[in-house]
Amino acid sequence: MEQARPIGVFDSGLGGLTVARAVRAALPAEHLVYLGDTARVPYGTRSAHTVIRYARSCAAHLQRRGAKLLVVACNTVSAVALDMLRVELDIPVLGVIQPGARAGVEATRSQRLGVIATRGTVASGAYVRATAALDPRVEVFAREAPLFVPLAEEGWVEGPVPEAVARRYLAPFAQEGVDALVLGCTHYPLLRPVIEAVSAELLGPGTRVVDGAEATAAALAALLEDRAMGVEGSERGGMELLVTDLPDRFGEVASRFLGEDVSGLEVEQVDL
Amino acid sequence: MEQARPIGVFDSGLGGLTVARAVRAALPAEHLVYLGDTARVPYGTRSAHTVIRYARSCAAHLQRRGAKLLVVACNTVSAVALDMLRVELDIPVLGVIQPGARAGVEATRSQRLGVIATRGTVASGAYVRATAALDPRVEVFAREAPLFVPLAEEGWVEGPVPEAVARRYLAPFAQEGVDALVLGCTHYPLLRPVIEAVSAELLGPGTRVVDGAEATAAALAALLEDRAMGVEGSERGGMELLVTDLPDRFGEVASRFLGEDVSGLEVEQVDL
Repeated sequence: MEQARPIGVFDSGLGGLTVARAVRAALPAEHLVYLGDTARVPYGTRSAHTVIRYARSCAAHLQRRGAKLLVVACNTVSAVALDMLRVELDIPVLGVIQPGARAGVEATRSQRLGVIATRGTVASGAYVRATAALDPRVEVFAREAPLFVPLAEEGWVEGPVPEAVARRYLAPFAQEGVDALVLGCTHYPLLRPVIEAVSAELLGPGTRVVDGAEATAAALAALLEDRAMGVEGSERGGMELLVTDLPDRFGEVASRFLGEDVSGLEVEQVDL
Repeated sequence: MEQARPIGVFDSGLGGLTVARAVRAALPAEHLVYLGDTARVPYGTRSAHTVIRYARSCAAHLQRRGAKLLVVACNTVSAVALDMLRVELDIPVLGVIQPGARAGVEATRSQRLGVIATRGTVASGAYVRATAALDPRVEVFAREAPLFVPLAEEGWVEGPVPEAVARRYLAPFAQEGVDALVLGCTHYPLLRPVIEAVSAELLGPGTRVVDGAEATAAALAALLEDRAMGVEGSERGGMELLVTDLPDRFGEVASRFLGEDVSGLEVEQVDL
């Protein structure tokens, strides 16, 4: 049964577990296979050429595992490699940028939308294009915020360091009348409380901070329904976790992103 | 002529250019081939298994390029893969940990030596072992300081963010009577002014901050002399730069680490 096959989810590392978490909440009966390319993380500072090469190997591995559908839970890959994956794979491929842009368009009232993302995502212009396709009246201001990635991985999500970093990244949006900010990298939701506090301080108390994880899960649910690809029954689906490297503190970091203890999860190390 | 062959230098990324810079200053006639594994940087947070696999592919590539000697300009690789490389390669292999430990032992007067390094280097215990072999009276306190790597790469080397990070990393050394601090990662010298200022503030004004780059260059010069492997003549040697990824801002970051404009250097992208 094609419907019983798992949904493949992949990211450069463990940040995409924030997306897997939203998918599990929205579609509890689906089986997930999550692949985190922890041996080559981060992708956000690499060239498009290298990101495409890495994305191809991750996607091929999940297809060999029988994935019925692929969720690219990485903004950088969604920004630079989604079209290529859609051409090369014979299963549906869903990214996180279009849903994130939609959530941003719905959140802004000033029609001036801020996006923070990795260098690779910003350079691709993907959020600008996705937003223009949804509502051409919304102007997008996209900036890179690369240090949020190591801060999230280190668990430095509150206190003077992330606050000073957030102030430096968010200050330029103040001149632009931005009233909604898209977290365009799956690592950033871990810093959401700090980003919200600094946004309120610098951009105004009504500033909305949104991320694409829930929107991606909703888009995925609609697609499964539309193509009759959803799993039958209501039993809770399994989750398999694949990584390309199993570094120290893996469990701690993975639990932080997934929002649940991963000690009960099967973790397999694969070479790509 | 074996002597005319280049010296191979490699690192996980561009941080090792701080070592290449010291080698060029100490041995201006030698030809260098520098390989930065920018497609897989950073190594410092990865498992020993993965670091060894990556180090093996870098070393093999430089040997194919005719290197007469290998400088492992990466503390993490020196910590976990040096013995393996020495066994597998038929050319001399020099790391940065032993020279760095020597510089630290010479700098401390309290016999209490601090080391900051990546997670992988600290976990290996390599600085503790190297110091014990040099002077068993010196006690080593090694701690990880992973966020200094992205700060150095971003060029955030002064101001409130690196200062707050340095305070958080260096404060624990204050209780231990440490009076010398080894920068056990080739990225950290870029933050040296901030690290020195915060060390003086938290550990006392006489605290010495040392790094292994000059000491590594001196050890290399002695080894070439000892084995009669040095290049003949006094003409300035060439430098070739190989990378596994050529990301945006490559030139800017490389120039920062090398301390000279790299626009005149030949840069070649290689697949490992």
